[in-house]
Amino acid sequence: MRHITEFSGRRERVAESFRDLKIDAFLVTALPNVRYLSGFTGSNGALLLTADRSLLFTDPRYQTQAPLESDCDVKIAKKALLSEILPWVNRLGARRLGFERTRISFETYDFLKRNAKTSRLIAVDDAVDQLRMVKSTAEAATIKAAVELNSAAFDHALRTFKQGMTEVDLAAEIEYRMRRLGAEGPSFETIVATGPRTALPHAHPTAAVIEPNELLLVDMGATVAGYASDMTRTMGVGRLSPKARRMYRAVLESQLAAIDSIKAGIASSTVDRSARNVLKKHGIEKWFIHSTGHGLGLEIHEGPRIGRKEARRLEAGMAITVEPGVYLEGFGGVRIEDTVIVTKNGCEVLTPTRKDLIVL
Amino acid sequence: MRHITEFSGRRERVAESFRDLKIDAFLVTALPNVRYLSGFTGSNGALLLTADRSLLFTDPRYQTQAPLESDCDVKIAKKALLSEILPWVNRLGARRLGFERTRISFETYDFLKRNAKTSRLIAVDDAVDQLRMVKSTAEAATIKAAVELNSAAFDHALRTFKQGMTEVDLAAEIEYRMRRLGAEGPSFETIVATGPRTALPHAHPTAAVIEPNELLLVDMGATVAGYASDMTRTMGVGRLSPKARRMYRAVLESQLAAIDSIKAGIASSTVDRSARNVLKKHGIEKWFIHSTGHGLGLEIHEGPRIGRKEARRLEAGMAITVEPGVYLEGFGGVRIEDTVIVTKNGCEVLTPTRKDLIVL
Repeated sequence: MRHITEFSGRRERVAESFRDLKIDAFLVTALPNVRYLSGFTGSNGALLLTADRSLLFTDPRYQTQAPLESDCDVKIAKKALLSEILPWVNRLGARRLGFERTRISFETYDFLKRNAKTSRLIAVDDAVDQLRMVKSTAEAATIKAAVELNSAAFDHALRTFKQGMTEVDLAAEIEYRMRRLGAEGPSFETIVATGPRTALPHAHPTAAVIEPNELLLVDMGATVAGYASDMTRTMGVGRLSPKARRMYRAVLESQLAAIDSIKAGIASSTVDRSARNVLKKHGIEKWFIHSTGHGLGLEIHEGPRIGRKEARRLEAGMAITVEPGVYLEGFGGVRIEDTVIVTKNGCEVLTPTRKDLIVL
Repeated sequence: MRHITEFSGRRERVAESFRDLKIDAFLVTALPNVRYLSGFTGSNGALLLTADRSLLFTDPRYQTQAPLESDCDVKIAKKALLSEILPWVNRLGARRLGFERTRISFETYDFLKRNAKTSRLIAVDDAVDQLRMVKSTAEAATIKAAVELNSAAFDHALRTFKQGMTEVDLAAEIEYRMRRLGAEGPSFETIVATGPRTALPHAHPTAAVIEPNELLLVDMGATVAGYASDMTRTMGVGRLSPKARRMYRAVLESQLAAIDSIKAGIASSTVDRSARNVLKKHGIEKWFIHSTGHGLGLEIHEGPRIGRKEARRLEAGMAITVEPGVYLEGFGGVRIEDTVIVTKNGCEVLTPTRKDLIVL
């Protein structure tokens, strides 16, 4: 029953914002938001909330599953969900129907606009996404479990490393270990890159053999009970060049400085600047071509963004990644990434994996 | 160079439709469509097409990768892609800018509407999705490779089956074998369900032990070179009840009848009806709670839908699944699914895995 209370509590918080948003009903269409507010984990669903009703719409494939997972009134739509939802919008007398501005598809919006005769449509900014940024104790514990499982899978997979292994082989071992340890699967496509391919921040694993005396970058996350984790480690196979080792030390210093800067109340951009300043000191700031991190939870990328121009202040309970990296085309790249939970006076680094240079 | 010719050929076909669509530029924002038309495989990209220009927008993470993959003019956006795209819309003098009605987010549409001063926005229905439905010879060969790899992974995983194995264990073996055989990963969350849980058409694997004398359902797909495959087999562990075996025979008969009905020129609904009629004869049509199949390719679900009310006619080269199933709450379910390519006079069943009842 704990879960069910948690979900209805979240819906109450959304309903409390109805007056400010000037709406009397809210249509939630983004699946992670539907899950967050209802508990339903299926691949097709929408939630219609009023001050005192919570209707969950899905299709017949989920007619058994949905009532097991959710405390909302489940409505099974035989056709498209929207054609079932619209009559309810009218029946519940919603005159001002909120929709998720950043999440709804144009097609759904267009359908509502043409067919919701009695309701005015109101674009609601990221109301649910905002709530989701600050994790409950239970959510933080789940993320921690996902992070720890991910690190354990990394350790197990590295123990299988042997000469002649390809990027794809190592990715397969990593994802297999995640699963065996109880993950639902990877929370994004596992990145394994070797040699100059480490300079591609989002490299797909290939059939390339992991060669000695080269950089090896692994970026991986495991989903546990719906929640994502995210970690990057850059390693050496055999002896790395002095240049590669210098890059590693600079990125590690940058990552530690960013972590040190984190606490509730500071702007996200401060964390980004802390990472960037260290790389500047080493003269390689221009090789840092992405932002320093992102929130994570039910999705692998959620708010807050930890970037150069993000003014949003961090709050205790936010779960974010810290992942500066430098990329030199033709040579290689280094990225080091942990997941942390923001606290009142600092942060808790959830990732247990060591950060001194791992040499295979 | 073959690939590059293939991509530019596709863009030419889109450009040929500009006159009918009454547009002079087309903004493609759905990532699978961007990939189909440009070759770019990254996670953030958009394509702006005019009669003689093809601009691919992405962010700095892909500045090395994008020009390697695509023959389009690559533009790296330092901020949001749209803020880079808009000046180009003006620069190219697009007066009527098409956008993907069924694929664009409301937020992107809203941004364009507020900021594209000189262009009128024109909603374009699924122009690219339509093209994608009919596969080229190269695409069909890739799907066949994905289907065959998937079946090989299934065989390898079943050979590891032993008493005490859980649903999650078997899912882990399946995905590991896919990877080791060269897949990029599963094309959707692998379903492994046992006993009464087979009655949930989209069950997540759990820690439940796969028990003897129960149904075992596996629905799995592997992605190879970007293309999906999809197969379901329902098996028996030990001796199944007469009722479960009757269900199996009825579903197999239904699936074979649906496959028999397929050829270019017939309506999709005819295939669905062929499957449904057999189940009706067995008195279990009401337990068949989803449609008979769907197209697949760069996405696991694409057109055409093979459902009760789908009038679209099949064309040679379409790749579709055929997957009737029956689900009886509290007892269990049976689904059998193959992937086929529609031909002029019938279809080629790509899936090599046997369909007589597999008993573990």
